[in-house]
Amino acid sequence: MSFAFDVKATVGRARAGTLNTPRGAVETPVFMPVGTLATVKALDPDELRAMHAQIILSNTYHLHLRPGDDLIRGLGGLHRFMGWHGPILTDSGGFQVFSLASLNAVTEDGVTFRSHIDGSERHFTPESVMGIETNLGADIIMQFDHVVPGQSDRAAAHDASERSIRWLERCRTEFARIKADSTENQALFPIVQGGTFADLRRDAAARIASAGDWHGIAIGGLSVGEAKPAMHEIMEVCDEALPRDKPRYLMGVGFPEDLIEGVARGVDLFDCVAPTRMGRNNAAFTSNGRLNLRNAVHRADDRPIEEGCGCACCRRFSRAYLRHLVRAEEMLGPRLLSLHNVHFLIGMMRRARAAILDGTFGTWSRDWLARYHSSPNQPEHS
Amino acid sequence: MSFAFDVKATVGRARAGTLNTPRGAVETPVFMPVGTLATVKALDPDELRAMHAQIILSNTYHLHLRPGDDLIRGLGGLHRFMGWHGPILTDSGGFQVFSLASLNAVTEDGVTFRSHIDGSERHFTPESVMGIETNLGADIIMQFDHVVPGQSDRAAAHDASERSIRWLERCRTEFARIKADSTENQALFPIVQGGTFADLRRDAAARIASAGDWHGIAIGGLSVGEAKPAMHEIMEVCDEALPRDKPRYLMGVGFPEDLIEGVARGVDLFDCVAPTRMGRNNAAFTSNGRLNLRNAVHRADDRPIEEGCGCACCRRFSRAYLRHLVRAEEMLGPRLLSLHNVHFLIGMMRRARAAILDGTFGTWSRDWLARYHSSPNQPEHS
Repeated sequence: MSFAFDVKATVGRARAGTLNTPRGAVETPVFMPVGTLATVKALDPDELRAMHAQIILSNTYHLHLRPGDDLIRGLGGLHRFMGWHGPILTDSGGFQVFSLASLNAVTEDGVTFRSHIDGSERHFTPESVMGIETNLGADIIMQFDHVVPGQSDRAAAHDASERSIRWLERCRTEFARIKADSTENQALFPIVQGGTFADLRRDAAARIASAGDWHGIAIGGLSVGEAKPAMHEIMEVCDEALPRDKPRYLMGVGFPEDLIEGVARGVDLFDCVAPTRMGRNNAAFTSNGRLNLRNAVHRADDRPIEEGCGCACCRRFSRAYLRHLVRAEEMLGPRLLSLHNVHFLIGMMRRARAAILDGTFGTWSRDWLARYHSSPNQPEHS
Repeated sequence: MSFAFDVKATVGRARAGTLNTPRGAVETPVFMPVGTLATVKALDPDELRAMHAQIILSNTYHLHLRPGDDLIRGLGGLHRFMGWHGPILTDSGGFQVFSLASLNAVTEDGVTFRSHIDGSERHFTPESVMGIETNLGADIIMQFDHVVPGQSDRAAAHDASERSIRWLERCRTEFARIKADSTENQALFPIVQGGTFADLRRDAAARIASAGDWHGIAIGGLSVGEAKPAMHEIMEVCDEALPRDKPRYLMGVGFPEDLIEGVARGVDLFDCVAPTRMGRNNAAFTSNGRLNLRNAVHRADDRPIEEGCGCACCRRFSRAYLRHLVRAEEMLGPRLLSLHNVHFLIGMMRRARAAILDGTFGTWSRDWLARYHSSPNQPEHS
């Protein structure tokens, strides 16, 4: 089986589809758990399968630095290395070199930066990133792009968007060169940049869409510090400018409410570290907002995190037990909270898909957001 | 089903038996994983069941301090709280108040100590410990005892042994009083003390054995700093002095080689934090000694920790992947190593049992120890 995308139903901008990949079909909209360093933090592949994770993401920048993409290639590739045999998507490191690494310097050739681990100087180019991503062997690989902060001015956003489009061409050429010698079946996704400027986004989306018969197109540079209404507007602009027959992947988003807002604006794929990061910070997603399991209110509470939740945490353990684990700093605490949170987002996207297929997505999403936002559990974003 | 013990076969001092408990049968010899704070560190109950753990241990001292035995009782007891529905044994806190807590002061009444968590002053008596252990609701509960270090002189060992025997009577009286009002079916095990002095051990074992029709008898105060030959001698003395028809539990032991030596000297039950503690320190047990997964030699090693091992770590992951997890400080690293190590000790005891049943334990154990000790992997004990 190769790559193909099929939209099964729509409600407004929202779409229910199927993305076929060489390692299996992905039903969209879908949340992709993030396995930054070849492990979804605190979870193992069996747990991911049990919660019906369909595709996971891993990080080019991180794996290049440690343990090294050459090593992973030598051990049979990322799927075998981490014991996950379903589809994998790797990002390009663009976001990380501009956010995590220090002293990054952009030229037309690429980006020079210092590793956040040992301070060593490194250089990423569109060509070198294609080399890393083909070494890792993910099913979907991202172009190397230039990401700017959400508050960037028009000139900076324009500059980064144009550079990303030029780098896309170099990625495509290098990827084709490598593919000529390879039996691996990988798909290269371009990334639409352009900051919070609708005209830049519209222009980039149209030019990228017409530049090739991509298997999917990503929207990058959102959820990087801009206001929510700006993010929502850009999602709508991209929905209108991008071809309807390709999957759209909104990079690095998000929290539960962001996923609903994204689906409502035509996005098909999402990824975010939020569920595992929140889990390590004692927080659990529920349909009535977020719980902090450290709070004394849970001390003797025999209920699960969420009544009716079928995850391996809620089926077995009480809030009281989770509070005990968290306070005692037992590893099982963040593990169970991460498990519940990832399960929560995966299940949310499955229900969104069902609501699109049966035509009820409009009311379902309105009700969902109203309940979530009105909850006394809902804290500030952290 | 109530408590009963049946010896099926012997080879020399070694015994293969079955210990029936109200929550299921335990085939001996057996290793009991330790869930100090109502969780076997890094593992969940499903993983323990999958590796055929039959009975686990939890800690009275720790659970009394956090989250509190009253809370656990209110939530339906320890089994329900931690999601483990097989047999549980709780220790009495004797070892912890003398080793972990500060400022402990022993009188005939009990021990006054300061909590290692918040420094608060606490007092344990034989009666209060019976209250805590019946609140927790484990199937097998231990008497409150007086533990002295392995290098203690004869007077100190004698004093602690005599006090432990007096406290056993108080435990029994209080336990009977509580049981009269309870439907819980728990068994109280006495503990033989006496340090490294054969005559003290022999005397204590005989007096304890004749003092009641116990469902099992523990050997305490070993593996607390004494030399290995002294430990082996005391195990032999206890084997001779204890009734053959009762299970013997050697508390807090041990490492793989200690378990084999213990089985060869008539011990039926073992517990130790070693497999999970070693797992959190990057070490893995193998039949050829111990591996440190941080070492560079594992960098590109595609083999599992142990060839042929059926655990959920070795079936899926390479030494290279484990080394990567350990270096990147990913939670999955200590989790998988803990899983392998506990599986290793459980499997070792299952094979020892099979060798006793088919009469080959003598050669099997000699071969096992020779291979383990001759391995270049075998480091110093830590």
